[in-house]
Amino acid sequence: MTQQTFRIGLLGRGTVGGAFADLLEQRAGHVAAVTGLRPRITGVLRRSEGDFDQILADSDLVVELIGGLDPARDYVQRAMAAGKHVVTANKQLLAEHGEELWATAREHGVQLRFEAAVGGVVPVVRVLQESLAGAHVERLHGIVNGTTNFILTRMADTGASYADALAEAQRLGYAEADPTDDVTGKDAAAKMAILARLAFDTPVSLAQVRYEGIEHLTADDLEYARELGLGLKLIGTAERVDGGLSVRVHPAFLYGAHPLASVNGPFNAVTIESEAITEITLSGPGAGGPQTASAVLGDVVSAMIPPASTHEPSERLELVDDVVSAFYLHVDVADQPGVLAQLAQVLGLQNISVKSFVQKGLGENARLVMVLHPVLESQLSGAVDLITGLEFVRGRPRAIRVIDEAF
Amino acid sequence: MTQQTFRIGLLGRGTVGGAFADLLEQRAGHVAAVTGLRPRITGVLRRSEGDFDQILADSDLVVELIGGLDPARDYVQRAMAAGKHVVTANKQLLAEHGEELWATAREHGVQLRFEAAVGGVVPVVRVLQESLAGAHVERLHGIVNGTTNFILTRMADTGASYADALAEAQRLGYAEADPTDDVTGKDAAAKMAILARLAFDTPVSLAQVRYEGIEHLTADDLEYARELGLGLKLIGTAERVDGGLSVRVHPAFLYGAHPLASVNGPFNAVTIESEAITEITLSGPGAGGPQTASAVLGDVVSAMIPPASTHEPSERLELVDDVVSAFYLHVDVADQPGVLAQLAQVLGLQNISVKSFVQKGLGENARLVMVLHPVLESQLSGAVDLITGLEFVRGRPRAIRVIDEAF
Repeated sequence: MTQQTFRIGLLGRGTVGGAFADLLEQRAGHVAAVTGLRPRITGVLRRSEGDFDQILADSDLVVELIGGLDPARDYVQRAMAAGKHVVTANKQLLAEHGEELWATAREHGVQLRFEAAVGGVVPVVRVLQESLAGAHVERLHGIVNGTTNFILTRMADTGASYADALAEAQRLGYAEADPTDDVTGKDAAAKMAILARLAFDTPVSLAQVRYEGIEHLTADDLEYARELGLGLKLIGTAERVDGGLSVRVHPAFLYGAHPLASVNGPFNAVTIESEAITEITLSGPGAGGPQTASAVLGDVVSAMIPPASTHEPSERLELVDDVVSAFYLHVDVADQPGVLAQLAQVLGLQNISVKSFVQKGLGENARLVMVLHPVLESQLSGAVDLITGLEFVRGRPRAIRVIDEAF
Repeated sequence: MTQQTFRIGLLGRGTVGGAFADLLEQRAGHVAAVTGLRPRITGVLRRSEGDFDQILADSDLVVELIGGLDPARDYVQRAMAAGKHVVTANKQLLAEHGEELWATAREHGVQLRFEAAVGGVVPVVRVLQESLAGAHVERLHGIVNGTTNFILTRMADTGASYADALAEAQRLGYAEADPTDDVTGKDAAAKMAILARLAFDTPVSLAQVRYEGIEHLTADDLEYARELGLGLKLIGTAERVDGGLSVRVHPAFLYGAHPLASVNGPFNAVTIESEAITEITLSGPGAGGPQTASAVLGDVVSAMIPPASTHEPSERLELVDDVVSAFYLHVDVADQPGVLAQLAQVLGLQNISVKSFVQKGLGENARLVMVLHPVLESQLSGAVDLITGLEFVRGRPRAIRVIDEAF
């Protein structure tokens, strides 16, 4: 049976566009198994090549990754008017002209999806638009700019100045050569306009979002914060206030127990509060070509499949029983010379090595608690049997798995 | 214009069923604005009342909240065969008969949604099924049972024994009178079977999931864990192993930096790892009537609206500029007597009170850093103007917002 092709027109082939083309090629077989359609890029528009009308004629869905307002706005409008679904990562476009574009989508009965425009791979758009479509949201807090979160994390961890942390972010590719939109909070403000629109079901445009950046923060602020038990982040807030709505972005200190306080480095996270749900937190990498491409692919696949269909399994993986795990091992022994050496010998014969170790005396007995390096569960179980048989061991040792840092 | 009614048949009216009926009544107006259809419960089946066939005939969608296999399985099958969408919170049913039910849904072109079956209000089903439909998932870790996470959190925080922490959970309504399914890991195993099916696109049933519970854990284990820098949780794992799949539930120690290590109390959380996305973490309350009802409502609304439509705004909230916030205030002053008193007086006159306070000498100057109780931003700004004018103040004080614990 020849599978039908699902034709994708790709506008823009920069970092994200390239990553999307690569990812689509890798995952085309899986997507075909899931949707019954084989996705294929049938046209690419770059600054120097490609004809938009031709690409449009040859596609079922258009992926817009050129960014900016012009000509993206015109292309997206024309694609939807021609009855094509659109997937875009363009936050600026939606923050400034969202209502007009969403109206066009409704008018022509097409999907306009934009998960990649906010929060990188964090699926906050879908959760707000679908999972929480019936909810009464009270407040939304977000770390929605990975560049500034990276800079603030470095300042907090190393005591670096703002300028030095920014330079490091630029060296590592987390900040652009011109970081203005990120560090002034403008990028975060555009994202918050979109999230506020979805969460509170009210029109919000970028011009209505107040924002402050992180340029004026000092290493000192972060040090005092630590003394006061606080963490410092660039936080976007959208919340009901006196029957109205406040949407704003500014640096803010968070108490250690706040779900966003532990979001570090170039990660994004959003906390959504509502009386019925209490709060949901979503977090993940905020940017990067492959991550953004992955969010775009999720939207493309969603446009291809009927809603909430659980398709037939495309795999028949074997269920594996014996797996590798690190272990915590707790052994009560008689407190006598040579015990530790014998225990170590048994473990060594089973090729099990000890990562860390605590010993406590308990009168005539001693308790040995150790963390073991990863080992096959059956192997550990064999070692525990052997150890249980040693005459100085009191009772069967207790083994609990450890999820390793390296995992 | 009379709005058309969207008719919901409700099977089961226990805690979750009652909470769902209440929530639907509260949110019916909003849902009507969003979907163009007014949702209404047109029939309720309880143990002692209601006729299933009549309820079916009178509904567009059936919400199944009776739980268990029988008669839930038969009802869900018959509803779908009659062309009705189904929303269910029944993890046991899906973990044992999911493939058969999903096949019926595909055959009859109806939606079978089940967000509330796993992770409470955490939207992990939707994210796996839709956002990550194109992704190659490598590993999924979850805290998917709120009862056991509450018990372990209490043991860790207070040094309580397992039995005492369980009794407390029962007193507070976090554990049932017969807690067997929760504490043995069986409840979590059913949820992991469902998540593994969705994440790895391969059939997985409850019988294939190995599980261990928390009954044998001691306060001692938690204390040693702390010494070793670890946290102890009941973790569900589904991961690719040698071309196959391992799905299991057992207690596990986590390093402090793991995203699940800080998930405490009756919360649920899931971490999904994939090369392209790195990792996504979703967290929120794991159970409770209103929370589960909220997940059910999200599924119901999703069945009512076309996919990825951004509907016209149903609200026109006013954008508010001046809001209340706690503040961190950083003031450099000449190190002379009476300075603090004058500063306190200025703040007091503006009705601003100080929550915490740090002072450091810096040669001839002193630096005062304080956290202020919440105040209107305009009020704080006025106070900063006054403080800047005091003759002993060096430069303009620096104010940064604090997101308060109470918020």
